Amino acid sequence: MNIALIFYIIGRVLQIEALFLLPSVVTALCYGEWQWWVYLATAGSAALLGQLVCIRKPRNMSFFMRDGFAAVALSWVVMSAVGAIPLVLGGDIPSYTDALFETISGFTTTGASILPDVEALSHAGLFWRSLTHWIGGMGVLVFLLAILPMAGGSHMQLMRAESPGPSVGKLVPKVRSTAKILYLIYLAMTAVEIILLLCGGMSLFESLTVSFGTAGTGGFAVKNSSIGSYSPYLQWVITIFMAMFGVNFSVYFLILMKKFRQAFFCEELRWYGLILLGATGLVAWNLYRTGSAVGMSFAEILRHSAFQVSSIMTTTGFATIDFDLWPKLSRCVMVILMFIGACAGSTGGGIKVSRIVILFKAGLNEVRSYVHPRSVRTLKFEGKPIRDEMTRSIAVYFFVFILIFTASVLILCRDGKDLVTNFTAVAATINNIGPGLAAVGPTQNYNSYGLLSKYVLMFDMLAGRLELYPMLLLFYPAMWREQGFCSKRTPQ
Amino acid sequence: MNIALIFYIIGRVLQIEALFLLPSVVTALCYGEWQWWVYLATAGSAALLGQLVCIRKPRNMSFFMRDGFAAVALSWVVMSAVGAIPLVLGGDIPSYTDALFETISGFTTTGASILPDVEALSHAGLFWRSLTHWIGGMGVLVFLLAILPMAGGSHMQLMRAESPGPSVGKLVPKVRSTAKILYLIYLAMTAVEIILLLCGGMSLFESLTVSFGTAGTGGFAVKNSSIGSYSPYLQWVITIFMAMFGVNFSVYFLILMKKFRQAFFCEELRWYGLILLGATGLVAWNLYRTGSAVGMSFAEILRHSAFQVSSIMTTTGFATIDFDLWPKLSRCVMVILMFIGACAGSTGGGIKVSRIVILFKAGLNEVRSYVHPRSVRTLKFEGKPIRDEMTRSIAVYFFVFILIFTASVLILCRDGKDLVTNFTAVAATINNIGPGLAAVGPTQNYNSYGLLSKYVLMFDMLAGRLELYPMLLLFYPAMWREQGFCSKRTPQ
Repeated sequence: MNIALIFYIIGRVLQIEALFLLPSVVTALCYGEWQWWVYLATAGSAALLGQLVCIRKPRNMSFFMRDGFAAVALSWVVMSAVGAIPLVLGGDIPSYTDALFETISGFTTTGASILPDVEALSHAGLFWRSLTHWIGGMGVLVFLLAILPMAGGSHMQLMRAESPGPSVGKLVPKVRSTAKILYLIYLAMTAVEIILLLCGGMSLFESLTVSFGTAGTGGFAVKNSSIGSYSPYLQWVITIFMAMFGVNFSVYFLILMKKFRQAFFCEELRWYGLILLGATGLVAWNLYRTGSAVGMSFAEILRHSAFQVSSIMTTTGFATIDFDLWPKLSRCVMVILMFIGACAGSTGGGIKVSRIVILFKAGLNEVRSYVHPRSVRTLKFEGKPIRDEMTRSIAVYFFVFILIFTASVLILCRDGKDLVTNFTAVAATINNIGPGLAAVGPTQNYNSYGLLSKYVLMFDMLAGRLELYPMLLLFYPAMWREQGFCSKRTPQ
Repeated sequence: MNIALIFYIIGRVLQIEALFLLPSVVTALCYGEWQWWVYLATAGSAALLGQLVCIRKPRNMSFFMRDGFAAVALSWVVMSAVGAIPLVLGGDIPSYTDALFETISGFTTTGASILPDVEALSHAGLFWRSLTHWIGGMGVLVFLLAILPMAGGSHMQLMRAESPGPSVGKLVPKVRSTAKILYLIYLAMTAVEIILLLCGGMSLFESLTVSFGTAGTGGFAVKNSSIGSYSPYLQWVITIFMAMFGVNFSVYFLILMKKFRQAFFCEELRWYGLILLGATGLVAWNLYRTGSAVGMSFAEILRHSAFQVSSIMTTTGFATIDFDLWPKLSRCVMVILMFIGACAGSTGGGIKVSRIVILFKAGLNEVRSYVHPRSVRTLKFEGKPIRDEMTRSIAVYFFVFILIFTASVLILCRDGKDLVTNFTAVAATINNIGPGLAAVGPTQNYNSYGLLSKYVLMFDMLAGRLELYPMLLLFYPAMWREQGFCSKRTPQ
């Protein structure tokens, strides 16, 4: 294991975090809040610590997949541990565990909060909270890749570990250029949203924070009513941008390259659109028919349905309405959308549309194989054949996902909350959404969970964001034992 | 498609059903109930209809997997449709839909009931209800195989379609002998249970019906309190027999062959025992610690825990206590056990221990592959290597299972019941258990569901018992289109 390089990467990540802490200093100064020095001190310490950790440039700048996974998982843990400090020191969240929960929730773009009253936070705290979404959305290591020169296949290993989806597509032959392009698209789209929100009369502070939350598909809002108090225009803008950030970014790259045909014939995009529209229609119809939305016009119902479906499916977690009060069918649709999630290669979480579609096709193939046992048909996705190995890997991923999910629910049951709360609490964290149903519904929060449950949920958020294996590897003994991390023996 | 042979098999199945209806005639006569002619008439009609359907012996006695699947699925549907008739005519269940629900629940060894008061039923009705469990447990086509001479590979296709588990093991080279041995073991174990229950002071009628319910891992009881009113001795006997019927029958065959070493080193058996004991311990500890079992000694708590865990894991569904009143953790354990289910090759349902273990190992292998990408390790189960294709197939099965589960829950949500009820209703039917939680808990029933929901649950019971694909194939258009069932074209 290339420990030196892992340390080097963690150090650099800390320095990037220091950089991202600075806007909060500015925010605090603008609003005349005393917390400016907290953010400045944390930034300074992080930068210094980062410099100390990576003072010695590793001789060997290449590493294997396991190193990439370890580097990414540890970076995310360290980054969250440091990111929680200013929230504690600034007095916004006195308990470190709670602050850590909030920060992990931020970086993993979950948006699950332990705060009963977000409006009581300092502007600097709110800004930092929302900015973590933006950093976590595209990934801090992808950012690192964009700015840091690295040798050989190392780039790819890091990118593979941090990027969501069953396979990582390089947009251009060079990983570094791919990372740069991704961040530029991300930045540009965020900027457009900020402008559109400003046009709708939102303040600069809110435009920035809401846009960060949308771009990262996070869901932290700066108001207790989430997005509920904004105008229909603003809600529609956010709806559309949530849906857009749930799309595979390679689609935008294809559009940039003027390959419109290719972009719009992306299979995952079409399925994603289909599910999004279908679910919106179903929910709107259900709300309209059951009379659950008393005194609302159909346009209003449609707006709330589209917003909520977009918010949940892209795993953002913003709310314009308390969907926990919706009829059973609509709530059930919401829970199913939580698991499906957004497209691979987007900033969203969940199992991902592409995995679900491939598994669905594999299931259909299995049925077909009983009818025509001798005609083996290869699965195709995005027009390309899917190897059996890939199908197996995705299907096993699905099982491992359900396994972690089940184990987490079991542990949460110790706290004595009802089953719907526990089920949706884990669903909303492992899929990086935020609000669940019942006691963790859109108007509630996660504060009433016990210490162990909170740490389980933190693990789930990280596992969900990094697609399980990087986090699982941290707990795999052979990972450390055989790689000379614990023992000092090195191969001769 | 060998339509002639499929018809021939359905005809024979009807005749076997006629045979199995006769004991109910005797029961009615013993208790002086007027329903004796209902069962006799149904038996006569079924025998006659069966004779008509298979009057022309098919020329070609061999067929392919798809024919086997179609034969099994259609046999089960026809068998249930006919089996429901005496319940309606006998006045026990006036609605045909409800009677069909009850009969499918019986044959699939689910034990989910729509009856609020089973004690109001006629003895003949109760006997028939319980006997369907016994028939469905080992499978009516396995019975057919044991008595009917058939050519070539046809046996195997039928056995594969009806037997639970990822792979079908032949005990002896001949399928017909295997089927005979299986039924003899089944009969012998049922007989031993009947004798032990009689020794405990149970009446002959109750001993028979309860033993049928245990042997088939069904769960229909003849008392409203299920097994709650029986003595501790009887409850322990039933506990042990439930656990025994959840074991792969090849273990008993090995014991019969005096291959004790092989029998006890069966990997699935050890996992099954481990989960059974672990869950019992966890539930007993949870009940004891939370003080949920007020006024109960630890021995009593242990008895109820062991009974309930055995009942749910083997997918029987008997109850000695209302476990819906247990603390959250124990209820969550119950729901997880529902999905795990019993061993492959037993009479139990669920996903099966072997599938879960293989998937767990595949998940571990996936994690390992990131640490040692170049050392490919083959999965092993029962000491034999598992092919990648098999792993993929099992993992896809798991996904298809969850997919059907989710779709069913979604449809049930239309009825407006709470999410826990809908979730566990589908879990308890697709896994062939019977009672769920909340409004379908051990003291409740399924009668309040709407018509569509009931048919969905019936489909789930059949799909669960026949392991999804035979039932899914019935709805696969190409199955009928291309095989000359709808069109009259035959290959030249």
